Amino acid sequence: MKIAILGFGVVGSGAFEVLEGAGYEVKRVLDIRPHEELGDKLTSNYDDILNDNEISVVAEAIGGLEPAHTFVVKALKAKKHVVSSNKHLICTYYEELHALAMENGVTIRFTSSAGGGIPWLYNLRRSARCDEINKIMGIMNGTTNFILDAMISDGSDFDEVLKEAQRLGYAEANPSADIDGLDTARKTAISSSIAFNTIIKEENVDIFSLRFIKKCDIDYITTRLGMTVRYLGFGVKGEGGISAFVEPTCLPKNALESNVTKNNNMISLFGRDVGRLSFFGQGAGKYPTGSSLAQDVIDIVNGSCELEFAPCDIKVDNSACQRRYYIRTSANVNYDFFDKLEVIDSNKYIITKNITVSEMHRVANEIRALDENAFFAGIEE
Amino acid sequence: MKIAILGFGVVGSGAFEVLEGAGYEVKRVLDIRPHEELGDKLTSNYDDILNDNEISVVAEAIGGLEPAHTFVVKALKAKKHVVSSNKHLICTYYEELHALAMENGVTIRFTSSAGGGIPWLYNLRRSARCDEINKIMGIMNGTTNFILDAMISDGSDFDEVLKEAQRLGYAEANPSADIDGLDTARKTAISSSIAFNTIIKEENVDIFSLRFIKKCDIDYITTRLGMTVRYLGFGVKGEGGISAFVEPTCLPKNALESNVTKNNNMISLFGRDVGRLSFFGQGAGKYPTGSSLAQDVIDIVNGSCELEFAPCDIKVDNSACQRRYYIRTSANVNYDFFDKLEVIDSNKYIITKNITVSEMHRVANEIRALDENAFFAGIEE
Repeated sequence: MKIAILGFGVVGSGAFEVLEGAGYEVKRVLDIRPHEELGDKLTSNYDDILNDNEISVVAEAIGGLEPAHTFVVKALKAKKHVVSSNKHLICTYYEELHALAMENGVTIRFTSSAGGGIPWLYNLRRSARCDEINKIMGIMNGTTNFILDAMISDGSDFDEVLKEAQRLGYAEANPSADIDGLDTARKTAISSSIAFNTIIKEENVDIFSLRFIKKCDIDYITTRLGMTVRYLGFGVKGEGGISAFVEPTCLPKNALESNVTKNNNMISLFGRDVGRLSFFGQGAGKYPTGSSLAQDVIDIVNGSCELEFAPCDIKVDNSACQRRYYIRTSANVNYDFFDKLEVIDSNKYIITKNITVSEMHRVANEIRALDENAFFAGIEE
Repeated sequence: MKIAILGFGVVGSGAFEVLEGAGYEVKRVLDIRPHEELGDKLTSNYDDILNDNEISVVAEAIGGLEPAHTFVVKALKAKKHVVSSNKHLICTYYEELHALAMENGVTIRFTSSAGGGIPWLYNLRRSARCDEINKIMGIMNGTTNFILDAMISDGSDFDEVLKEAQRLGYAEANPSADIDGLDTARKTAISSSIAFNTIIKEENVDIFSLRFIKKCDIDYITTRLGMTVRYLGFGVKGEGGISAFVEPTCLPKNALESNVTKNNNMISLFGRDVGRLSFFGQGAGKYPTGSSLAQDVIDIVNGSCELEFAPCDIKVDNSACQRRYYIRTSANVNYDFFDKLEVIDSNKYIITKNITVSEMHRVANEIRALDENAFFAGIEE
């Protein structure tokens, strides 16, 4: 059983080194850039891989939707197993790719698409086989955790920490996917789809951006509430359906997540039988994510090819989950679900009563129309 | 592929419910006690299982060395896969049972023998396939973590918290295996054997008991050192060999372990490629441990049967690892590796320079001969 890797960037080259180092032969690598160290293994023609009957596992590390989607579909149709680290691809085509894999009697695995080096999705799937998962929750984005940790430790404000993160390579020149939550939302959608055996798309995930957080929020949350704050994705199973959302979240200082520093990740599942299981590690990087991609490949080479995919018809409904919220705004607002309102330096610091996630996100849009800098955070007790 | 469970106690009955609930048929259960709810599945005669060719996986949840050892050996020789939650058995017969499994072309798995519901050993083995594990470390015993957490939160002393733990069922009437470290030492030995691909026995693990800790130690460690304390097992790969030890350990307050409260467990591996991976969950209990046993069974039923077992010849040597130590004693002692010595209320509070684990345990015996209540803790910076 021989292996091909598509894309020889950070993750692809990491996976290549891990696989070869562990004695697994990577027969071909697809890349349009020259890589002399790859010698004859390198090709820029995908047909060299597709038509090679010795290659039975294709590891996709190109990223983005195209040409990754076309390549993966072709691989599955050619009855080759597929492994991918591409959260955008998996989140968008979860249903199609699973169905195609089933149809062709092969496996598709994508542990490295969420949580980087953490075997999160792998263990989530393993737990979901025989347990009932009631909730998933986690720090799934290293950039935003680096920013929050630095703001809390150093007392710095958002903009300066973001610049520092960009300087260190922890944040991109255009940081929107991280700080506005799309990255976490995609990982939340994939995780929730596995946890609850259904199809959750990124557009089903309600998002509060992190970019509006200020030093005054950190001060209020840490000092007045005695809590800390992290940027978390949630999938929650309720009687009315599945809630999926990404929100800055106030947590007790002794919560596990409160001691997750720097750009690390921690993701948890809550099972009927097993209780809470949490997984901590590096959420990105050449060797962490590369080794996670490699592990999925090795599982397949070792004969682990579970094929079940029969998503149930459970709907996404963010009115199925209630929580309290922290709001900071300069606008004049007054809602009957406010529990506590404190005015400091022209800012209103508000703690709500329990309110549904969907209602809070609707109201937040009203408030943001009056105050474009308003900040919203859920409260995880 | 049908399943038999040996022992219908807490873990065995938990695994039974999890397996049947997930649609996996448990054909027979071995127990000498009556269990009407099991009907015809129950037998007290092991031959009913051994001679049943339909049964190809035997899950052992009897505990202790005999008859568990005899039963497991017979199952392997009958070419049945074996799953076990029995740390005493696995720790004692690791080499024999692996070799027997290899010889008979079957698998032996024992994820639930350390970490309860946490898929720790499972993921450790998966990581070790293609990564180099440099260290494992963890809270592997819920009783001692419950005691330390309560001492730190409530300011109570050891004896009263132990009594409370016994009242709540978190500690046994004879708590020695937990508080004197044997339970953690066995889990450390099994974990280190997998991590470093070698054979580590419980007698290779140096242990400092937790039973000598007092309120004054908690006060000194939390207030004067600004740290917290947990009871940890360690396996460390050094140039000279593997160090394996169990010690009360001072940790920074922002360490992940410092927020592991109550009777929870957290165990970590440090890999060359993946960096630090930590796993948190319930370390004991009917459904957590039962589901972990069930998961190993399901892996085998699903065709995941890795057979490699070729331990390398790497020696155990606790002089291969250095750390600093905290010592509290009333004896008059003076060693040149002391870095700081403070006398409060006739107690000497000592911080050492870096010293090898083996040297510290040798010296600790000298000190304990003078002061039977002396307390020793490693310092994890």
